[in-house]
Amino acid sequence: MKKIEGGLESVPGYRFSSIMCGIRYDNRLDYSLIMSDAPCVASGLFTTNKIFAAPVRLCRERINNKIRGILINSTNANACTGETGYSNAAALTEDIAVRTGTEGKSILMASTGIIGRQLPSDKMKDSHDELLKNLSSENGSLIPKAIMTTDTFPKSSACAFTAAGKEFFIAGAAKGSGMIAPDMATLLAFILTDAPVAKKDLDESFRRAVNDSFNSITIDGDMSTNDTAIILSPDLPEKIDPADLNDFRLALNAVLDDLAILLVKDGEGATKLVQVKVINAASEADARLAAKSISESLLVKTAIFGNDPNWGRVAAAAGRSGAAVEESRLSVAFDETEVLKKGTPVDIEYAVLKEIMDKREYTITVDLGLGNGTAKFYTTDISYDYIKINAEYST
Amino acid sequence: MKKIEGGLESVPGYRFSSIMCGIRYDNRLDYSLIMSDAPCVASGLFTTNKIFAAPVRLCRERINNKIRGILINSTNANACTGETGYSNAAALTEDIAVRTGTEGKSILMASTGIIGRQLPSDKMKDSHDELLKNLSSENGSLIPKAIMTTDTFPKSSACAFTAAGKEFFIAGAAKGSGMIAPDMATLLAFILTDAPVAKKDLDESFRRAVNDSFNSITIDGDMSTNDTAIILSPDLPEKIDPADLNDFRLALNAVLDDLAILLVKDGEGATKLVQVKVINAASEADARLAAKSISESLLVKTAIFGNDPNWGRVAAAAGRSGAAVEESRLSVAFDETEVLKKGTPVDIEYAVLKEIMDKREYTITVDLGLGNGTAKFYTTDISYDYIKINAEYST
Repeated sequence: MKKIEGGLESVPGYRFSSIMCGIRYDNRLDYSLIMSDAPCVASGLFTTNKIFAAPVRLCRERINNKIRGILINSTNANACTGETGYSNAAALTEDIAVRTGTEGKSILMASTGIIGRQLPSDKMKDSHDELLKNLSSENGSLIPKAIMTTDTFPKSSACAFTAAGKEFFIAGAAKGSGMIAPDMATLLAFILTDAPVAKKDLDESFRRAVNDSFNSITIDGDMSTNDTAIILSPDLPEKIDPADLNDFRLALNAVLDDLAILLVKDGEGATKLVQVKVINAASEADARLAAKSISESLLVKTAIFGNDPNWGRVAAAAGRSGAAVEESRLSVAFDETEVLKKGTPVDIEYAVLKEIMDKREYTITVDLGLGNGTAKFYTTDISYDYIKINAEYST
Repeated sequence: MKKIEGGLESVPGYRFSSIMCGIRYDNRLDYSLIMSDAPCVASGLFTTNKIFAAPVRLCRERINNKIRGILINSTNANACTGETGYSNAAALTEDIAVRTGTEGKSILMASTGIIGRQLPSDKMKDSHDELLKNLSSENGSLIPKAIMTTDTFPKSSACAFTAAGKEFFIAGAAKGSGMIAPDMATLLAFILTDAPVAKKDLDESFRRAVNDSFNSITIDGDMSTNDTAIILSPDLPEKIDPADLNDFRLALNAVLDDLAILLVKDGEGATKLVQVKVINAASEADARLAAKSISESLLVKTAIFGNDPNWGRVAAAAGRSGAAVEESRLSVAFDETEVLKKGTPVDIEYAVLKEIMDKREYTITVDLGLGNGTAKFYTTDISYDYIKINAEYST
């Protein structure tokens, strides 16, 4: 497995198009299509929010079909739009299918943007000629740009890997920024490979990789109506033997890890990237609970922003997480510097701690001293800009 | 039951003292004592955080004793301070007991402030002469000032009520501001009455009243190590008959409601007070889950701050709350203006909604359309000042 330059365009067998349809704003890429030359096996993970967007409902119904394409729009979430919203998504994918000589049920859809407004479906349909005309493998580099909302840079990652003696490729594009939270809050991610992986192996590998990447980052603890992560793999008659998938899994993990860290770094208004490591928890589930609680704590995040070594907030966030925590076993460190050791504050110089917190990236390690469970989260600070961006989003 | 002017000083049978001990800063009231003339029955509710401060441990051990006094300090939480922290709290309360001719086990303690530093216990002990010398009933008005941390104004409330044909009084003082969340995150509240209420009745009434007030507000979703709410009632031989406690309960609820709303209004950096009402939930528990999730959502809170009618964030927060939610049954209103009706957006004028959101106080009603459960929370916006206050707290 090795990282390579570029993004989706690196994977043979797919074509891409992104256009300015004018869904909500003029002059921005807002409507995209990914088409596969061959029918594909697909895996998808979606928001667990009970209010989920029409395209999520459509993907859930179709994800086990043979998939030929993914239609994607930004600037409008098509969420809280009732049956009209669903009909619009169904009609748009059907139109693409008819024009490309495939079936409607083989086209997925993903949307991001404001909630509660109907898509301008006539305008979107009218743009399908242009959307299809622009399909090319080079245009893969446009996808991460076209799906951005408040993101400040496009996010993609690619790897080459070998399986059964052959070289294959895998690449992904993602958007995130606001509302990023464990359980994949507002995230769109599209992963493509030219390696033929059996559905069962694809499902298993993808679920595990998403859990260790997108589900282990947090920006503001909110969870979106539209989270969608999809992977496609060509449905060729000869699948790669599960025993030969090791390098595929490493490459998949590497691509998703890359994208997850890019998402955190681009968190709305974020100025820091902090790894929260919980070790020696009573269980892995407990480790995740504590890491999530610390990562989402507003008081921890404002302390990170202010370079303020107020480590009591870290201990308090662990204590309220629901994980088993005993004060007399609890230790906390910033990078290598212990501040709390088995429940007793360590007498350290303020300047030492301040130097760590002044950095753009560091690690907070919380040792619960109760077992073998570990978890790793990435979080950001919360800054004035977060408030500004989100106070002014819809208007 | 009727509201009256004033605070703790309105309740006969108690004396108060607040002094500038210099625990962390010079020139601020930081050390207080409430003494009862008679031994009292007490009820207490404390943080559910597994990391809890030494004074919380001490209160839990003593709350069922006959209580004579409460020792209170601000500017240092005495949390994450190990056995030394506990010994300090025990020694300070013991010293007060010895000097007042009572038992150490009859003195409670409450602390608020920075986590992870030992109390300057010698200095505090040295101030006990002054603390005791200043005891007077009039000094009750100093308590809400002396317990403030980042609060911008002192909070108290008082009522007169009748029980068994006699007039009694009840009053409370509270501090909150940062870290206020359901389950009483960083809150100190001291409630006093001169009505002799049996322990069992006091426990029941207090638990219910706290649940409907302090546990139904949220500022930032964090939960503190030091939350303490205590009520004292004189342990006289003749208790009020439970059948005559109705007006007491009304007065208790009124005092706690008052304090809870003052706490939200003084939320760090808050510029708004928004009531979140969830109605027709499948159960009361579901209604609370949804109300809490909406009230704590950063995206909802930034929208409130920005007067941004982005109601999709309210729907999304309800959907991820864990409560049963069905999009086709979900309605959302700002004051009387419906924006979502049974899953379909209502076509309303932007200006109408904007006018509501421009107000300092309004109500968001979420109708889940699934049952009879209701819950009411109070929340605030999150503003630049919240970040500023919390980024700079410990340094």
